[in-house]
Amino acid sequence: KRLRDYGIEIGVIPTGELNAITDVSGVKVGHTTKCLGDSIRTGVTAILPHSENIFQQKVPAAVFVGNGFGKLAGSTQVNELGNIETPIVLTNTLNVATAMDALIKYTLRQDGNEDVRSVNAIVGETNDGYLNDIRGQHITTNDIFSAIENSSETNVQEGSIGAGTGTVSFGYKGGIGTASRKLPESLGGYTVGVIVQSNFGGVLQVAGINVGKELGNFAFSNQLLNNVDGSCMIVVATDAPLDHRNLNRLAKRAFLGIAKTGGIVSNGSGDYVIAFSTAEEVRIPYNTPQLMTWQTVSNDHMSPIFMAAIEATEEAILNALFKSKTTVGKNGRTIEALPVSKVLKILKKHQVIKN
Amino acid sequence: KRLRDYGIEIGVIPTGELNAITDVSGVKVGHTTKCLGDSIRTGVTAILPHSENIFQQKVPAAVFVGNGFGKLAGSTQVNELGNIETPIVLTNTLNVATAMDALIKYTLRQDGNEDVRSVNAIVGETNDGYLNDIRGQHITTNDIFSAIENSSETNVQEGSIGAGTGTVSFGYKGGIGTASRKLPESLGGYTVGVIVQSNFGGVLQVAGINVGKELGNFAFSNQLLNNVDGSCMIVVATDAPLDHRNLNRLAKRAFLGIAKTGGIVSNGSGDYVIAFSTAEEVRIPYNTPQLMTWQTVSNDHMSPIFMAAIEATEEAILNALFKSKTTVGKNGRTIEALPVSKVLKILKKHQVIKN
Amino acid sequence: KRLRDYGIEIGVIPTGELNAITDVSGVKVGHTTKCLGDSIRTGVTAILPHSENIFQQKVPAAVFVGNGFGKLAGSTQVNELGNIETPIVLTNTLNVATAMDALIKYTLRQDGNEDVRSVNAIVGETNDGYLNDIRGQHITTNDIFSAIENSSETNVQEGSIGAGTGTVSFGYKGGIGTASRKLPESLGGYTVGVIVQSNFGGVLQVAGINVGKELGNFAFSNQLLNNVDGSCMIVVATDAPLDHRNLNRLAKRAFLGIAKTGGIVSNGSGDYVIAFSTAEEVRIPYNTPQLMTWQTVSNDHMSPIFMAAIEATEEAILNALFKSKTTVGKNGRTIEALPVSKVLKILKKHQVIKN
Amino acid sequence: KRLRDYGIEIGVIPTGELNAITDVSGVKVGHTTKCLGDSIRTGVTAILPHSENIFQQKVPAAVFVGNGFGKLAGSTQVNELGNIETPIVLTNTLNVATAMDALIKYTLRQDGNEDVRSVNAIVGETNDGYLNDIRGQHITTNDIFSAIENSSETNVQEGSIGAGTGTVSFGYKGGIGTASRKLPESLGGYTVGVIVQSNFGGVLQVAGINVGKELGNFAFSNQLLNNVDGSCMIVVATDAPLDHRNLNRLAKRAFLGIAKTGGIVSNGSGDYVIAFSTAEEVRIPYNTPQLMTWQTVSNDHMSPIFMAAIEATEEAILNALFKSKTTVGKNGRTIEALPVSKVLKILKKHQVIKN
Repeated sequence: KRLRDYGIEIGVIPTGELNAITDVSGVKVGHTTKCLGDSIRTGVTAILPHSENIFQQKVPAAVFVGNGFGKLAGSTQVNELGNIETPIVLTNTLNVATAMDALIKYTLRQDGNEDVRSVNAIVGETNDGYLNDIRGQHITTNDIFSAIENSSETNVQEGSIGAGTGTVSFGYKGGIGTASRKLPESLGGYTVGVIVQSNFGGVLQVAGINVGKELGNFAFSNQLLNNVDGSCMIVVATDAPLDHRNLNRLAKRAFLGIAKTGGIVSNGSGDYVIAFSTAEEVRIPYNTPQLMTWQTVSNDHMSPIFMAAIEATEEAILNALFKSKTTVGKNGRTIEALPVSKVLKILKKHQVIKN
Repeated sequence: KRLRDYGIEIGVIPTGELNAITDVSGVKVGHTTKCLGDSIRTGVTAILPHSENIFQQKVPAAVFVGNGFGKLAGSTQVNELGNIETPIVLTNTLNVATAMDALIKYTLRQDGNEDVRSVNAIVGETNDGYLNDIRGQHITTNDIFSAIENSSETNVQEGSIGAGTGTVSFGYKGGIGTASRKLPESLGGYTVGVIVQSNFGGVLQVAGINVGKELGNFAFSNQLLNNVDGSCMIVVATDAPLDHRNLNRLAKRAFLGIAKTGGIVSNGSGDYVIAFSTAEEVRIPYNTPQLMTWQTVSNDHMSPIFMAAIEATEEAILNALFKSKTTVGKNGRTIEALPVSKVLKILKKHQVIKN
Repeated sequence: KRLRDYGIEIGVIPTGELNAITDVSGVKVGHTTKCLGDSIRTGVTAILPHSENIFQQKVPAAVFVGNGFGKLAGSTQVNELGNIETPIVLTNTLNVATAMDALIKYTLRQDGNEDVRSVNAIVGETNDGYLNDIRGQHITTNDIFSAIENSSETNVQEGSIGAGTGTVSFGYKGGIGTASRKLPESLGGYTVGVIVQSNFGGVLQVAGINVGKELGNFAFSNQLLNNVDGSCMIVVATDAPLDHRNLNRLAKRAFLGIAKTGGIVSNGSGDYVIAFSTAEEVRIPYNTPQLMTWQTVSNDHMSPIFMAAIEATEEAILNALFKSKTTVGKNGRTIEALPVSKVLKILKKHQVIKN
Repeated sequence: KRLRDYGIEIGVIPTGELNAITDVSGVKVGHTTKCLGDSIRTGVTAILPHSENIFQQKVPAAVFVGNGFGKLAGSTQVNELGNIETPIVLTNTLNVATAMDALIKYTLRQDGNEDVRSVNAIVGETNDGYLNDIRGQHITTNDIFSAIENSSETNVQEGSIGAGTGTVSFGYKGGIGTASRKLPESLGGYTVGVIVQSNFGGVLQVAGINVGKELGNFAFSNQLLNNVDGSCMIVVATDAPLDHRNLNRLAKRAFLGIAKTGGIVSNGSGDYVIAFSTAEEVRIPYNTPQLMTWQTVSNDHMSPIFMAAIEATEEAILNALFKSKTTVGKNGRTIEALPVSKVLKILKKHQVIKN
């Protein structure tokens, strides 16, 4: 069950219908889960901004580097040209190249891309090497293709799935999580959706409550010396028509969502946010005319959208924890799922949810 | 009273002795409070990294721009050369130039600086124009000098004082706040101190509890339309020997502290963090030799220092709120102090503090 | 006489009518020259994007930091919000605060700005402390007002004037220089204008020829040990409708223009570029609606505009040298004007101009 | 023959012994050239900072993004952690993933790296798709391994070789070029070496002379409409002990070298500079202690090193042009070598070289 199924609410803005990134119209998500034998615990998650040829119909985008201990592919071109031209793929650290190559092949093969000679593949990663035989580089080109092909606008699965199959978060099993916010019409009526691949540490807070502290399991709790490294990949989608600059600012707000769950963005964490807009009025065709006409949200009306991104990121990270399951992996290592009943007890004690 | 006087604890790392930025040895803080007549509600806060001639003994430093709707002076040189060479002064938005000029005069006049022809003054600001007649630009050169001269290593005053005289935070009276963390020896034994000038909004969280929501007073709470603009200036000091790069990373973590209090870093917020190291082994003399020898903390040992900065920033912002007093200002406008007894009641209800 | 009056051509794109930044329609430039007694050799140069209330009708803009040993005011807000809201003022290093304060006062007093409580003043500087008694801070608020008031769309004066009164470039008298390029209609027909305050060093190249080397006067020429510090402030205007992102890219190209004159962007140089667009279709009113409609040049059509900025910057720097005059200043120090006849002889020898 | 073999000199600082990046002690360069059949014209160039296990003995480094239309892998981690941990590989745009994967495999397999689970591969590229069947992605993992294995400290080959096999520069055959500068002892005695993969356009200048213009072959020369896109990858090595911050500044200077050859850094150009220091006193072991001791060049002594990087970059780009040969590639397309005899004639006319 997800966070809200237990009566836990994050923030003050209403969620979208599915409380998922796919509440942003047109966005699709697909997973490939690779859970094989004793030691393969990894996977792929693909996020598509829309269902058409993305290379031919680029979307405005920005990448914010929260902490650059990571191997994100494609960031410099996104920030120079202000757009993305492939699906976004998340996987494990040592298969970023596999995913890049698959995205390039995917793009070269698409109808209409026969003359394309340059592709900026967007691949994020976190390191699942505690549970997964990451050195084995078990993701294949076909695993990437599958995630893209299986993507859909409904039913984003969460937890120990896709790129979240082998991840660890706050000492518990992390994974994929998603959430969304829908602003009231008076504030623009826009939807902001977030999906995360959570693999980081700190002192877990659920709805503000220091659950990590009460469970006695947090960053540096053993003489403050536990390893908190890991990473958090965050993808933010919105139907608000935003340009690169305001998408970059939006991405920075999602980064704040990490802090609200108790994350500390440790030295070894690769924390990146990719934000894009799906609004049709800001699409960028491959062959652009001299002048393009844009309609974008002005600076002065950005704050509610910022707030939505913070809330959705916090909730997506918590959904990942609540939905993930105890996983045994490489060398018999076990990462327990978040002890939900204990957490609920703590939250009840603190009257964050009702008894 | 401060946050901890009510039994409220933030985070898991012990505080320094005074729980103030001045726990970092050598750091001094001074205020000039300008509360005159019906409409002057402003002031100056000066932070000195050490008691010697700062221009002759520069300290490594970095500036992180959280949201650049602000007039911070000096940031580009700090990030290019990696150091600061004057005290840091905080004041109101329209008196940044006054403070810059005062810092230049202060530096030119210091013994030993007779040949100095270039001074990079560091001035931060927030906009106190709701309570203060900011257009009157009431800060004078002497007000800056006074703040510097009155600075001391003990007894950092907080609340509606100095540069926090006229600020507003989460709809309540904001101001100056400070806090510190002292890492255990096993993690380096370093002290991290923070001082903030808080003037921003969002949904106030105290020790994680959504106090703003329960008080019915938060960003966009009135059909989610309240103004949340404002700013947060954060200064981080540490005795850990850090170079510019790791100070920049440290500054970014302090930015996360804003989120933990419920801040949303709105469009109109000027949120900046200045971080510096006071360690003698990283001082930069004005006349440097060809080669300098540094001893600095390595990347792999930064995480506890990062965590300390997040905790201290959160607590400093809350101290500012708890210590500030109801203020009547320009045009008879009143900003109430945080209703501490109501807040305590909420925190007791949630068992964050004992009954 | 200017560069082209001697038959020297830079680049391949035609100049605008005046070969000045004011070829960009609406742009105005004004100077205050302060050349008094034995030791005051300084001044002010103001650049206005248009003749209306700039605060009420902001223009898109970006700042690129080439080398941040400088005190440029306003950069972080320009890059966050993507616009400028005051005239741009250039002056000496220790009077930046004076200029900021004057721009704030100028803006507060303008009709229609009665409620304004936040002003992001844009002030650049170079250090004229070799010829000028810079520690005396001789620029006054009125000097700034005069430069703004005297600004005009025609007749941009160059050389030892305004903010260039006391500057030094390549060991010779530097100053203010300007140039422009007008693209053919097939490439958009846009005009790019540049104005520089030149105060830096290296090995002077004129139209590519290593004049500095042949004159025996260049960076490190005396056992490669001469001081090359100084700074170059560059302002780029264009009537091409550009957003912040592409203005930032344009600013980076102007930076390349420094290299083409032989500049090395030394450690002590404060090299900044401010670029803005005057196109009416990208103006940003103070009170913006939820959605703004923009028409901007697309990425794929930017290259000719980039090329224009490089050429115009190179030529503007050279115009500053050719137009400046031998100046005696503080402590009887003399900086000679570029020995134009010698330079012409060298250029003739190399057949860059005709005999 | 190289530039200096014709008597053409760039700049004023002496070259190193080989006038190559390998003049920086310990640096090795290797190529794999893939010139097969009618349409495969591509390759790999590998640069190794030293001969030991680079992952275990990382070197300080920085990446400067001149224009981000490119797929450089690894930049965010380099700039976050301040170092590189693999060889640097250059190849074609659509084989970046192949090279990343090869570098990961290379690193995982090295003795001593048995526990390594995270590798930040550094791969740069330019687009050789005009001459090469780039969509065929003809580079293999073994091609990367070969380039690394064949690397040597002597005899860096230039021209149409390695990653420069299929590149085009200023409308002529581009390729790999290298150069170096050795500062006099009074300025530190350091060596700066540069290697480039040149694939960009503009108006070619050789030793300052507008050769492109005189040859009638330059950017936009046909009604200023030629395609100038392409890219320039630049790698800068130095034995000066520099930290990340000053390496980043050094990288920015190399970027200026592009301008001196007439490059305009067009919209479609992926222009990146990677700079690293080989000095043993700044090596970063994989397992670092709490405190590291560094000895680094201070800011005030950086300018000569900056100047050396500009000069070496300019010369390396020109060497690439002078050493490359006419190449026939995909679809029978031909790119002529620089017409050296015509160029020399022009340079003689301008008395840049002797008759």
